[in-house]
Amino acid sequence: MAIGIGLLGLGTVGAGVAQILQTPDGRHPLVKELELRQVAVRNLERARPVELAAELLTTDPSAVVTNPAVDLVVEVMGGLEPARSLILAAIEAGKAVVTANKAVIARHGAEIAAAAAAKGVYVLMEAAVGGGIPILEPLKQSLGGNRIERVSGIINGTTNYILTRMAEEGASYASVLADAQALGYAEADPAADVEGGDAADKIAILTGLAYGGLVPREAIPTEGIDQLDTRDIDYARELGFVVKLLAVAERHGSDSDGTEVLDVRVHPTLLAKDHPLAGVNGVNNAILVEGDPVGRVMFYGPGAGAGPTASAVVADILNIAAINQVASGPAAGQDPLLAASSWRKCRLVDAGSTCHRNYVRFQSTDRPGVIGHIGGCFGAENVSLQSIVQFETEGAGAEIVVITHAVEETGFRRALTAILKHPEVEAVTCCMRTL
Amino acid sequence: MAIGIGLLGLGTVGAGVAQILQTPDGRHPLVKELELRQVAVRNLERARPVELAAELLTTDPSAVVTNPAVDLVVEVMGGLEPARSLILAAIEAGKAVVTANKAVIARHGAEIAAAAAAKGVYVLMEAAVGGGIPILEPLKQSLGGNRIERVSGIINGTTNYILTRMAEEGASYASVLADAQALGYAEADPAADVEGGDAADKIAILTGLAYGGLVPREAIPTEGIDQLDTRDIDYARELGFVVKLLAVAERHGSDSDGTEVLDVRVHPTLLAKDHPLAGVNGVNNAILVEGDPVGRVMFYGPGAGAGPTASAVVADILNIAAINQVASGPAAGQDPLLAASSWRKCRLVDAGSTCHRNYVRFQSTDRPGVIGHIGGCFGAENVSLQSIVQFETEGAGAEIVVITHAVEETGFRRALTAILKHPEVEAVTCCMRTL
Repeated sequence: MAIGIGLLGLGTVGAGVAQILQTPDGRHPLVKELELRQVAVRNLERARPVELAAELLTTDPSAVVTNPAVDLVVEVMGGLEPARSLILAAIEAGKAVVTANKAVIARHGAEIAAAAAAKGVYVLMEAAVGGGIPILEPLKQSLGGNRIERVSGIINGTTNYILTRMAEEGASYASVLADAQALGYAEADPAADVEGGDAADKIAILTGLAYGGLVPREAIPTEGIDQLDTRDIDYARELGFVVKLLAVAERHGSDSDGTEVLDVRVHPTLLAKDHPLAGVNGVNNAILVEGDPVGRVMFYGPGAGAGPTASAVVADILNIAAINQVASGPAAGQDPLLAASSWRKCRLVDAGSTCHRNYVRFQSTDRPGVIGHIGGCFGAENVSLQSIVQFETEGAGAEIVVITHAVEETGFRRALTAILKHPEVEAVTCCMRTL
Repeated sequence: MAIGIGLLGLGTVGAGVAQILQTPDGRHPLVKELELRQVAVRNLERARPVELAAELLTTDPSAVVTNPAVDLVVEVMGGLEPARSLILAAIEAGKAVVTANKAVIARHGAEIAAAAAAKGVYVLMEAAVGGGIPILEPLKQSLGGNRIERVSGIINGTTNYILTRMAEEGASYASVLADAQALGYAEADPAADVEGGDAADKIAILTGLAYGGLVPREAIPTEGIDQLDTRDIDYARELGFVVKLLAVAERHGSDSDGTEVLDVRVHPTLLAKDHPLAGVNGVNNAILVEGDPVGRVMFYGPGAGAGPTASAVVADILNIAAINQVASGPAAGQDPLLAASSWRKCRLVDAGSTCHRNYVRFQSTDRPGVIGHIGGCFGAENVSLQSIVQFETEGAGAEIVVITHAVEETGFRRALTAILKHPEVEAVTCCMRTL
């Protein structure tokens, strides 16, 4: 039985989806059952990479949502509104929804999930995280026997591209960003990518699926790469590390009422060169899932692009089409793995109580005794050190780079304050986490 | 509604499964619905890593299959018989089956699939390939929108462990194998691993899912690592490659009747150092899937072990439990993605017509003119070369290593015959494919 698809948006992802639906040969036979019935576009006159019959197009997205020939709504227009309202309207009309919109799911996921559960429809979003990489479906459908301990990922292609080039060429952040913008790898307004917000949206979604409960998106500590100095990438390399923008969701035990306590964050991170994520370069993404008893599994691939993202959107559509063949209608239950509703409470950990390894760069005048002072202040706070290295710099002064063992955040911060009281320590010029 | 699980086998994987079922807290809530109702073991008296009530145990596996309290049979005993008969008996009794048994699925998959389709039950096997890595479910449930072009994988942990140590230590195959056996990473009879048969079983299963049709397991060209000389690993490294035992299933077009033509094979392979599979070391596995439009996605993780394999078995059980919540009983259809029945014909390509890059090592007397002779013979067959390098060896003679561009197998073989006619070329001492 054919399934009517309504498409909201015909940008690169929407066109990629239409292209798959128009060329089903050689794909799973279920693709033949998917019929594109209506497409909402902004401008009817614009040239497009796919040929579509004129009568399929409309400039009114709500007409697609209410079209009785449309059984399943695919939202690939992006942005918060009207995307959120259209998704809710589709659910209200009893239609399944597939979206690639990480921003709307990260911010309005609870509202959308509640509406979907009330109506017994699926809202799937594989394309929202990791582009073409199957990651949300494996988390839901293949790792449910595990207790997830940590999810860590390189989930923003733009920043990974910039960091890869900074590392390979020694070029500055500003010059690589400008080049990435010229090449189309970074937006004219790069803030969502380079300040970490896009990665925070995605780790919020991953957290919900990995731990079975939602955390407040706006409360996720987020640091981007826009303040990163190339010299820290160079120093890190000399010490055996690469620098990546990592999004992490880590379990920190649970409260007495069973609420999961999670450390969720986004920040530039030093990774040992032999870490599985260290070799993920360019616009590729990868997500490492650590669980009991599976151990470490990693999912790697293209984090963006029309084709990969369309592959993920179509995967969601096929999952819904397949479930409809088991049973559909009001008597049918929902597949609890695919529906992935929340099943426990989660909250963010108090940041001061977490433990991390740190990379710190101090600017100081080059005097004997400074290293001793730094070591002493860390020692007084029980901050155990892996290395202290002094790098020579052009001009006056010295740079001292410290890598700590895993230490509690509060004591580490107190030590930094004490170190800065020494007149010859001028500044903490960089502070990053180390995995 | 609880689902009754019957376990055939309580070795490391069976015990791992029991352990997950006994400790559901913190795992997906559906795990709580899984009830272990009977377990077939070989010896009732043996000590086990899990505690089980004595009344759960039986030495009669067919009693588990026919037990009316058992809804789903988990086969983790291994071997061809009685595993095959028990799986068929479970299907005949209308029960779903989950198995970790690659040998039985690779050899009797068609028979088992036909029986399962006739009865409308699921037979799932995530644990049969890649241990804990979610790969079969993603192929079925997340990549159906793609035309798969190639699946290539490191899918045997024992041989990858041996190759990793040979490369890192320069040790011989025989000494590393002996050590691997002492450490429990290789079986007392290592043939299935080191001769490539285990990897061939697994690529047969991957091929069926990636391309939607079965290929005859016994016809898959299979070469192991048991003839591999450490010096070829060394030479490969000097030329910028690593050597891995690769299992590959590649699309070579289709016949006029629509039959897919596939090049499926297992052999030691040279990979460029920056290839995503090149950094997969030790007992880890990884599977790279290349498709249109997704591009390259890779799945990485522990290829064996009680915990990872049990994670995959439980994933299958959960998928079946989840589908049962949508609808069950004779009126319900099957989920076509999860059931993954064949949907087209596939056949193996005629090996002579395929194109490959090759690594060849010649033993020759060290005389001027030999390199010219080798180059001339390849040229006469239109075999284009990437490099010819002469390595000095202890004792008499020289070793000449050639890496070709992608060339047709037939012409390449003719060139080798011609080269060997020269009196100063003593032998082709190694010949491997290069990806």
